[in-house]
Amino acid sequence: MNKTEIASRFRDLQLHICQALEELDGKAFFQEDTWEREEGGGGHTRTLQGGRILEKAGVAFSAVHGPVTPAMKQQLGHEGEVFFATGVSIVLHPRHPRHPIMHMNVRYFELEDQTFWFGGGIDLTPHYVDSVKAKHFHEALKATSDTFNPNFYPQFKEWADRYFFLPHRNESRGVGGIFFDQLNEANAGLNKEQLFEYCLALGKLFPVVYKHQVADVALQNPTAAELNWQALRRGRYVEFNLLHDRGTKFGIYSGGRTESILMSMPPMANWVYNQEPEEGSEEQKTLSFLRAFHEFC
Amino acid sequence: MNKTEIASRFRDLQLHICQALEELDGKAFFQEDTWEREEGGGGHTRTLQGGRILEKAGVAFSAVHGPVTPAMKQQLGHEGEVFFATGVSIVLHPRHPRHPIMHMNVRYFELEDQTFWFGGGIDLTPHYVDSVKAKHFHEALKATSDTFNPNFYPQFKEWADRYFFLPHRNESRGVGGIFFDQLNEANAGLNKEQLFEYCLALGKLFPVVYKHQVADVALQNPTAAELNWQALRRGRYVEFNLLHDRGTKFGIYSGGRTESILMSMPPMANWVYNQEPEEGSEEQKTLSFLRAFHEFC
Repeated sequence: MNKTEIASRFRDLQLHICQALEELDGKAFFQEDTWEREEGGGGHTRTLQGGRILEKAGVAFSAVHGPVTPAMKQQLGHEGEVFFATGVSIVLHPRHPRHPIMHMNVRYFELEDQTFWFGGGIDLTPHYVDSVKAKHFHEALKATSDTFNPNFYPQFKEWADRYFFLPHRNESRGVGGIFFDQLNEANAGLNKEQLFEYCLALGKLFPVVYKHQVADVALQNPTAAELNWQALRRGRYVEFNLLHDRGTKFGIYSGGRTESILMSMPPMANWVYNQEPEEGSEEQKTLSFLRAFHEFC
Repeated sequence: MNKTEIASRFRDLQLHICQALEELDGKAFFQEDTWEREEGGGGHTRTLQGGRILEKAGVAFSAVHGPVTPAMKQQLGHEGEVFFATGVSIVLHPRHPRHPIMHMNVRYFELEDQTFWFGGGIDLTPHYVDSVKAKHFHEALKATSDTFNPNFYPQFKEWADRYFFLPHRNESRGVGGIFFDQLNEANAGLNKEQLFEYCLALGKLFPVVYKHQVADVALQNPTAAELNWQALRRGRYVEFNLLHDRGTKFGIYSGGRTESILMSMPPMANWVYNQEPEEGSEEQKTLSFLRAFHEFC
């Protein structure tokens, strides 16, 4: 199980997920951009716009290598001069406000001395929180995680709860999910192959779970209030990604490929000064839930 | 000239600017929110939405004090335990794509040992670059600056060119302006009163200059192409503010009042993966200009 095999199977995973999402969407197809990185490696960025279900979606694969940069050194907490990193990243922005935004990332990192780790996560950001759907989402993550290590789900869920939070809004980004980083043989109790299989299993779970999230929502034309709320929640998504998301910030500040990093941006977003939804409205219920998320999650 | 007088005259400046902008707009009025800060001080945030010229505008005044926080210490480069800061910040997002976004900030900072400095700037971000208007804008800044110190304009213009730049896009945010920080008696060759008068003069210049920027643009209904381009450029404005703007980042990460900080956000913004304007179009000319700005500014 060397880095070339891992990259190749992540690339297969990307294509598998795109195919599954195209089937689900039933209208639009992914376009592929292939790019190279001056310092070594490159990627395939696949994006879809204007679908039936998906208004804007990105599924990116990359496999890059080169000298460890000063910015990396700061984040690494480990000595090394040459790195290799490969992974798949996804963000789905659905057209309908009653469908959720969903995000996933799985990645592998190694240094020249064969030190390696895996990182990743899946999280769900509904514009309107549906507690039954949120529960189903978490159960699916738990079921898949439990087949690898029963400690994973509780640990990684808590990590996601802490991570996907906007302190400047005192709001959770959504209903959480799982998040993990620097997972290796020493701290995970699994060998390299098993950890990789876990990442692949999460990747395969992604389109299945998304299909369930959008399955029984009758696609009536959204109301003006729903669309307005979606645009405001998309504004929060932008705020999280540009102010707090470690991957985005690291990528941007270290000179990564901007278009591949910012494929996570929604197609559009709104900001209204000091906007508070009407008391008793569904929008207000979602906001209360996100503000209190840390208390009962 | 103590801190209370400075704050009081900054507050007057805020009200003066709001009145001038209301006259210019001719339709909408500013609403005021007054807030207090737990650690000391507070502010008046004035916002306007849905005007004839201005789609979303914010003119904020604040005067805050309290213990110097660890985050501040890092930025200060100066020992101190108690600070006082007051200033006025403005962002105007016009309705019409042929009208420019304009931003201003003037601020005063002091420590308990009476060490003080002024900071600020004005910069212009047209959705479509008009070189005649850009030239007029710079001439006005130069004329006002020259009456205080002929070194100010060239120094502060260069500072703005460096500062209002998006490295991840290799684009200037707009056509620049002036930017300055930590200006005091020692480095500016002016006394405290004169430096304060310079800030006030810039503040008074702001609505005059904006009026000129929008004056002779016939308000025809914008085309779909113009509105689309405006939304994309607003996306860049969001990227600058959340990824690079020091004031925004410092405010957000240090627990400032989010709504007052993010009043700078446009009413809406769009993102399209890898969007490039058509060869030879006006949009493409603006983009080429912004990408080459550093070469001929």
